[in-house]
Parts: sequence; C-alpha cells; structure tokens
Amino acid sequence: MITTNAYAAFNQKDPLGPFQFERRNPGPSDVHIEILYCGVCHSDLHQVRNEWNGLSIYPMVPGHEIVGKVLSVGSEVKKFKKGDLAAVGVMIDSCRTCKPCHQQMEQYCVEGMTGTYNTYERGTKTIAQGGYSADIVTDERYVYQISKKLDPAAVAPLLCAGITTYSPLRFAKVGKGTKVGVVGLGGLGHMGVKFAASFGAEVTLISTTPSKQKDAERLGAHHFLLSTDPAQMTKFDSYFDVILNTISANHDYEKYLNLLDLEGKMMVVGLPSEDPKISPFSLIKNRRTVTGSMIGGTRETQEMLDYCAEKNIVADVEVIPVQKINEAYERMVRNDVRYRFVIDLKTL
Amino acid sequence: MITTNAYAAFNQKDPLGPFQFERRNPGPSDVHIEILYCGVCHSDLHQVRNEWNGLSIYPMVPGHEIVGKVLSVGSEVKKFKKGDLAAVGVMIDSCRTCKPCHQQMEQYCVEGMTGTYNTYERGTKTIAQGGYSADIVTDERYVYQISKKLDPAAVAPLLCAGITTYSPLRFAKVGKGTKVGVVGLGGLGHMGVKFAASFGAEVTLISTTPSKQKDAERLGAHHFLLSTDPAQMTKFDSYFDVILNTISANHDYEKYLNLLDLEGKMMVVGLPSEDPKISPFSLIKNRRTVTGSMIGGTRETQEMLDYCAEKNIVADVEVIPVQKINEAYERMVRNDVRYRFVIDLKTL
Repeated sequence: MITTNAYAAFNQKDPLGPFQFERRNPGPSDVHIEILYCGVCHSDLHQVRNEWNGLSIYPMVPGHEIVGKVLSVGSEVKKFKKGDLAAVGVMIDSCRTCKPCHQQMEQYCVEGMTGTYNTYERGTKTIAQGGYSADIVTDERYVYQISKKLDPAAVAPLLCAGITTYSPLRFAKVGKGTKVGVVGLGGLGHMGVKFAASFGAEVTLISTTPSKQKDAERLGAHHFLLSTDPAQMTKFDSYFDVILNTISANHDYEKYLNLLDLEGKMMVVGLPSEDPKISPFSLIKNRRTVTGSMIGGTRETQEMLDYCAEKNIVADVEVIPVQKINEAYERMVRNDVRYRFVIDLKTL
Repeated sequence: MITTNAYAAFNQKDPLGPFQFERRNPGPSDVHIEILYCGVCHSDLHQVRNEWNGLSIYPMVPGHEIVGKVLSVGSEVKKFKKGDLAAVGVMIDSCRTCKPCHQQMEQYCVEGMTGTYNTYERGTKTIAQGGYSADIVTDERYVYQISKKLDPAAVAPLLCAGITTYSPLRFAKVGKGTKVGVVGLGGLGHMGVKFAASFGAEVTLISTTPSKQKDAERLGAHHFLLSTDPAQMTKFDSYFDVILNTISANHDYEKYLNLLDLEGKMMVVGLPSEDPKISPFSLIKNRRTVTGSMIGGTRETQEMLDYCAEKNIVADVEVIPVQKINEAYERMVRNDVRYRFVIDLKTL
C-alpha cells in the first residue's frame, strides 16, 4: 500500500486538518500520479458540510479537479508514462458495460458513476479519497492527458467547472451566430463565458450584480444583462438561443425561460437545494426547452482539454497553500473568489 | 354583413344560450364556411368561466375545432371552391411577417397569434367568435383541406387535440423503436396514443386510473403504467425516450422525469394553473429534457390532416346537439367523456 498525506474533513463541523491514509498499489491498468494542484469546487464544501444528501462519509479528503505528474504506470497502461502530466476529474470509475459507458458518457452510467471522493471505490469497502492529497492511483480510463503549454494550476478547474460548462454548450450546438446567455458569474459561469465566446457565439452575462459587468467583458462577454432590472429583462425577452444556467442558489426558472427565442434551450448545470418552479405557459411559448447536464464523459473531457490547449483557455485562479483551505471555504461562501481557488499540493 | 346564429356565454356564470351576431362579408382572401361540426375543447370551458387570465371577453362564442362546407370564396382564394370540406382550428390570424410566421409556425408569432375566439379580429375592435355557430369567415391561410374519406364529426377534434399531440411527437422524432409514454388519457392523451402508435413507437399509457387500461390498449397502447403504484414506477425508471405529458391538473414534473432514459424528452402540452416543480437533480441525470409545445402551425396542421386521411385516424367522439352544451361541460368536469364532445351544428 501507499501511505498518502492529505487534508481531510473528519466530521461536518470541524475545520479540515492533516490526515494520512493508504492508497492501493497500482494495478496493471492504474496510473499513480503525484498531485501538483487541486481545484476547490463548491461541491467540496457541500459534501464536507454534509449539505446534499446527509450521507457524507468521513474522514473525507475532498477534491476532484486534480492535476499532477505520473510517478508510475501499470503494465497495461498505454496512454501514460512516468513524468507525463496527467489529470483526474469528478469520476474514477463506472460499470463500463452499460449503453452510456459504451458511448464514453460514463457520467450517465446506468448503475451510477463512482465519484472521486465521498463514496467507496467500486466494488470495495475502501473510501475513495480525493485530490487534497499528495498522490492518487486511478484507472487509466479515467485519467486525462494535459498539455505542457498551459499553467497546470489554472488547468485544474477545467476538470469540473470546465467540462460542466463545455459539455452543455456543445450539446446545444453553440457556435458562430448563436446568442448565448450565461446566468451567474462564478466558477462555472466564468468558464461558460470563455467557452461560449471561443465557440464564436454572441455572449451575454446575466447577473444580479452590476459590478460583474467589467469582469464579464474581460472574460469575453459582449453584453451584460442586469436581471434585477425589469426594463432590461423586457428588452431581452425571447432573445437567446441558448441560456446556460449556472445558479446554485434557489430560484424559479420562469424569469430566464422568458428570455428564450423560438426553440431556445436553457441548459441547467446548477443544483439548487429547493426544486425550482417552471411555468408551462412560458415553456409552450416559443417551444422552449430545459435540459439538464452533468459534467462530461471521458471522451468529451479529453476533447475539452485538447480544445483548451489549442485555444489557450484556462480558469482564472487564486492559488493557495493547503493550510488556507478552511479560510478559502469561508471566502467561497461569501462569493469572494475570482473565480476558483486551487491548492498547491507541494505545501502539504 | 352576415347574420350568424350561435350559442354564446354572456358572462362567466350563466349557462350558454342562443345568440345572434354579425360576421364580416368575405374579403378577397376569405373563405366563408357553413359549420357542420365543432369539437368541445377543455379550453372552451376555461375561457367561458374566465379561469385562465381573467380577461375573458363576452359575449363569447367558443369553439376552435371547426369542420364545415365552403359556401363561397373570395376572388384571390386558391385552395378552396364552393362545396369543398374545410376546417378551422385554434388560430385565425397572425402578423404574417415575423420569422415564425415565415416558417408557417404562426402559433409562435412574435406578436402573438390571433385565436379563433375570446380575442379581437386582428387590427379591429370586432370580437372574434368561434365555432359554436352556423358559419365562419376566415382568411384562406388559416383554413385547412380535409378528406371526404373521414367522418367529419370525428375530424373536428384533430384541429386542436390532434395537432397539439401530433406536433410534439414529430418534433421529438418519434418513430419505429421509440419508447413513448403518454401521461393522461383524455382528449389530448387519446390522440397522443393513436399518433405515437401509428408512427411505429412502443406506446405506454401512464395513468392514475386502472380502469383506463383496456381503452388504452384498444387505442393502440402496448403497455399500461399505473402511476400510483411505486413498484410499477420503479420498473419503468429511466425507460422512455419520449414522454408526452398531457396533464392539465396540478402536478410536479419529477415523477415523470425519472422515467426518462438517456437524453429522453418530456414534451409538455398540458397547462396546469399552478406552476409545476422540477428537480434539477432529475434533469441532469440522463441529460433529460423538458420541452413545451403549442398546437401547430398552418403547414404542420395540414400535414397532420393529410396524414390522418392516409392512416384513417380520427378522434373518438360523442356527438351532441348544441342545446346539450351546458350538460356536456358538467360531464367534462367529471371526466365523463370518451374522449371528445362534438356539437352537430345543424341542431342550432
């Protein structure tokens, strides 16, 4: 076994602190990765604090935006060799036999994908532990190649915030001429603006916060729509072809639905804790659509990383030492981050 | 002007009764139609009783499932001649210049379509009056050709219940091999079952009423799913490619969403008075979609009528004299109709 240093939550109340645990020895199809950087996702906080399903497993090493360097590979591994850069995202396994798995859309695995942490390694009683740690052992199928051209700290958030926005924009066929509205400018929203703009779309950032206009434009947005201003909202009535809704706070869908043009699509990636209401009258007008989207599969995640290397796209990050993770959580709650914290694991 | 006999609602409380009003003389592009049959849609009742938007206009002659015989045509009319069968549906006008109008999807007209009744004739202060009447004068664009092969009384409901279910099933590309669930077996649902089965789909009727199973099968359904039985609902978890949701009673969407397979679509045509809740967790699972659909445009309505003639598809109807309309409304409220009342206008 491999003894691994980490930062963990020991229960839902206390601050995270140092922790040591054992990882499996790499099997024939495994890649053993020294973790360089790990992004801090809002879902880390939700799970650490047991806010989602009441089933959080402790001790919990969070982190599913992982970038590192390959230490060793199993005998059957083809894509990686020692010294390569490598990345691990939100999932580390799936059934590999169902229809979605065959299509490399493992996030929709019929049996359910295996998350990177806060679950058990598939078919075992070993707690899967995430990326706030020195190293990780993952089956090659769920490990991605990343380019040396990009800043590895800024690549880390692509593994969750990146793919979660890239996938629905591709699914909605966003491209040149598409009018895209991105609702919310946080970790997800800022990547949504970057991707939609890079695909050639006309991008509008939709926000309740006037001060975000400048940043939205810097990130590539062409317009800014203040959603608390009824006059502006009326101006954009039936305007957009696609709306990427990244809001995790409780809200109703109707307000944004009404901004959709004929056959417009609202892509939902935010997960409010209370179910939103939706107006059937707003839905049938313009034959509007609401579609949910969950991260991306292994093929699309690699495609997204390759696209980012080609287009020089990374997240806007603030790199922190692991000792500052509890403070970072507090700042995330206050929305005080532009736009993703990333832990530098050499501080461990 | 043309003096027209009709049945009208004079306010939101009293029973409908005899009424006489004037229709315009046919203009160059108008068709003057003697009405033979008019279907009784649930929305007639909603509007008569002022249950939708509080803006009902009285006196109101309801009816937007109209079948009749051409009495005369204007000088520019090309599609019709005296003596032809003809039909009028839910709309009689639209702006004719916007993008949806150019695509003959006039139901999504940017300015809003002109309904057949409970509104004003476009650009005038004349109340538009519907099909519980002896005749109607309508611009050729919004008049449809119907086949002599079909029973004209049973054709009438195709103009609303028919097109409202045909259009979303076509939009969702239902065909051979598609697993379709139809929720609710009323005027809309019974047409949804017929169309989905005729398109070659595997059809399941989803209902809270066990006694509807037999009828569902007679109409073409292959399976019956009792939605109040949790064990049956679990069996159909993630099963359907398309669900046609025809329910107008208040309900949440989550229950039916969970029945959708990967990239499954719920097509919503029912209009509950309270906004349904929708679970984002259920939406992002399987990348599910909810799409609203409103009747159909002029091209698609004609296509549907031609398809019905080819496949010998009509509604199941109970023909009533116009004097029984108030009693029919009471029976509709009790769901006591299999599956559409149709008024025989020669009883007027």
